[in-house]
Amino acid sequence: MISTEQALQTILNSAQDFGVEEIPFIQSVGRILKEDIKADRDFPPFNRVAMDGIAIDYLQFQKGQRTFPIEGIQPAGSEQITLQNSENCIEVMTGAVLPNSTSAVVRYEDVVIENNSARVSIETVCDRQNIHTKGKDGRAGAILIHKNTKISAAEIGVLATVGKATVKVAKQPKVMIVSTGDELVGVAETPLAHQIRRSNVFTLVSLLEKLHIPSETAHITDDKPILKEKIKDYLSTYDVLLFSGAVSKGKFDFLPEVLDELGVEKLFHKVAQRPGKPFWFGATGTLGLNIQNVNLDGEKSADIRSENKNQKNTVVFAFPGNPISTYVNCLAYFYPWYHKSVGLENLIENAILAEDVTFKPNLTYFLQVQLSYRYGHLIATPIKGNGSGDLASLVNADAFIQLSKTEEITFKKGEVFPIIRYR
Amino acid sequence: MISTEQALQTILNSAQDFGVEEIPFIQSVGRILKEDIKADRDFPPFNRVAMDGIAIDYLQFQKGQRTFPIEGIQPAGSEQITLQNSENCIEVMTGAVLPNSTSAVVRYEDVVIENNSARVSIETVCDRQNIHTKGKDGRAGAILIHKNTKISAAEIGVLATVGKATVKVAKQPKVMIVSTGDELVGVAETPLAHQIRRSNVFTLVSLLEKLHIPSETAHITDDKPILKEKIKDYLSTYDVLLFSGAVSKGKFDFLPEVLDELGVEKLFHKVAQRPGKPFWFGATGTLGLNIQNVNLDGEKSADIRSENKNQKNTVVFAFPGNPISTYVNCLAYFYPWYHKSVGLENLIENAILAEDVTFKPNLTYFLQVQLSYRYGHLIATPIKGNGSGDLASLVNADAFIQLSKTEEITFKKGEVFPIIRYR
Repeated sequence: MISTEQALQTILNSAQDFGVEEIPFIQSVGRILKEDIKADRDFPPFNRVAMDGIAIDYLQFQKGQRTFPIEGIQPAGSEQITLQNSENCIEVMTGAVLPNSTSAVVRYEDVVIENNSARVSIETVCDRQNIHTKGKDGRAGAILIHKNTKISAAEIGVLATVGKATVKVAKQPKVMIVSTGDELVGVAETPLAHQIRRSNVFTLVSLLEKLHIPSETAHITDDKPILKEKIKDYLSTYDVLLFSGAVSKGKFDFLPEVLDELGVEKLFHKVAQRPGKPFWFGATGTLGLNIQNVNLDGEKSADIRSENKNQKNTVVFAFPGNPISTYVNCLAYFYPWYHKSVGLENLIENAILAEDVTFKPNLTYFLQVQLSYRYGHLIATPIKGNGSGDLASLVNADAFIQLSKTEEITFKKGEVFPIIRYR
Repeated sequence: MISTEQALQTILNSAQDFGVEEIPFIQSVGRILKEDIKADRDFPPFNRVAMDGIAIDYLQFQKGQRTFPIEGIQPAGSEQITLQNSENCIEVMTGAVLPNSTSAVVRYEDVVIENNSARVSIETVCDRQNIHTKGKDGRAGAILIHKNTKISAAEIGVLATVGKATVKVAKQPKVMIVSTGDELVGVAETPLAHQIRRSNVFTLVSLLEKLHIPSETAHITDDKPILKEKIKDYLSTYDVLLFSGAVSKGKFDFLPEVLDELGVEKLFHKVAQRPGKPFWFGATGTLGLNIQNVNLDGEKSADIRSENKNQKNTVVFAFPGNPISTYVNCLAYFYPWYHKSVGLENLIENAILAEDVTFKPNLTYFLQVQLSYRYGHLIATPIKGNGSGDLASLVNADAFIQLSKTEEITFKKGEVFPIIRYR
């Protein structure tokens, strides 16, 4: 049994680059940018009028002139005009190009217009006031958004502005989510007394949807030959297989055996944590190799190499079948694996434990908590659940707090621990 | 000019119920639940085996028996069998029904199996151990998810478990997003020197997408008759119109005038804030009426009533055209309006200001900040932008901090203020 840190490191070592695709920018929210976005011209691209009002030659104001006959109008979206007489002014609209030969904008609020003449009613006007100077926000060629940024609404605005109608983003892995367990029936079915409905696959679909990863789902009966045939097929098609169930010690937990027979290298089975302990992780192709090369002796490694080198690279996350176990392991392991694969940094968030928690086993404890904000502090209040089968308790929580084993068996109120937020 | 608090209150007063629709549960992530979700049976629905191992009659262990001949096997998903001889045991799998006449499960790790007989190798076994008792997580009929919950992956698992193949959620408002401004060209076009590309509509589309609200977009030229004709059409079709631009003091800012002529009641124009001050908000139909009844004198109110009572209810958010203004106003006003409309509580998050901020105008200041976590504290570090036109500065920030006007002109480092997070 390995620690949660070792498990995570092994998983991060098998992160994989799925390449780049170009998609319409408006569909790119939530995806990871795979090119630097540069200003195609200066921003603003011209000396831009920042207030509705009049544009004047500042020198005239400085000389004492206060009343300026209106010579013309410069609307937004019109070609730049020129002030012909420096004692005149031009009416200008927000977003317009500043007219030639003008150097300050006085807003309508500070002007009285009568008989086609504008009288400035304030005492102080500054040179260049209310002008958003060409290139002030960024010069042509400057990087506005860096590669590997997660695209949000803010980035969409910039992409539109610089004319990136299509944008390069990280390709998503091709994922198959498989449930096992003969006790499971469909959501629309009425289970018999000894049956329950499938739920983990749908939870996983939703957790992946949050990362904008589409996925497919299947259910396989607890029958070894069928399991083997189907998984063989999936391994040749998908980049990631997510399983829920059939990895424990049960008589019908064929999964580890079947994966082994299909040449999936087991990288670990069982992690010192609760819930989610019987988690199995492995890989095929060079992914299985790379890690084996480090971990195993030379002979075994060479063996595996000859067998695996023509295989497609697929990672296999086989989560225990309890709802909370599947849920927390997807967040604690699949999410970081995905983030590393697409080039996104894994940021760790911390919260303050709201009450003492006593936990005796020599395991890392992922405890459900409700989050709240008090005076800029993030507070994590534990939720009492009934163990790893209690799906309903997830509904009452917002995150897991990760309490890693120390000498003490009590985690103190007021101490700070990492959290994995899921809302 | 009204305060941000008054503006928000007016907007919340015009929240509206768009009714309920029933959709497939797997498509319901991010939507607001409009029914209580109850347990269709006890959870777990039977005394559920929680570990792979053997099920025994606890009384026999208590009497000193340690070796139990294996009488049969109870896999998950099979009908409940019965232990025939209380001195025997049954092999049981996680998720299976506990066999009749057994009362404790000993896991495989604590058992040695030889010659079809299981010897318990530990000293202590408790009555009911490793059994997840029927109904422990919830009784049939208990509410597992309350109405008005925002559905996440956690809720999806529960919906599947209780067989809610379809689920009742709040209907989304029908939204049209309109940009104005003759300086704007399409994203795929190359702008002339005095033009820029459209970006605010796409930012708004993305901000609404985050709320799972689909929207349509249009661009209207700064021509009053065209503006009027198109808006008239939109008012009869959509629940919400979002505008960007044409609400300031410019010669071609026809929007307030056109909206007035079309019978849209102006509820306010201009809010004491920066950026985003020239924000115009109004409504048609009974929405316009309700608020007018409160705010205006009896006579005016009666006038409006006769004119408006046959109109469809539409709210009109006309945001100033600067990118940051549109962005912050959508977050600060449209989001709370939507949340109230669908029955979701508006939670206010706070953060600690990382440095002194001096701001002189008598306005509420929405300042872009980067968020970081330090020892369970949420820290907001101001980003230096170039004013409301500087779209690129949004990319470097995560949230706006809301600095409301007080006597002081300096907001102190270490003080706590509300934030509006957008990542």
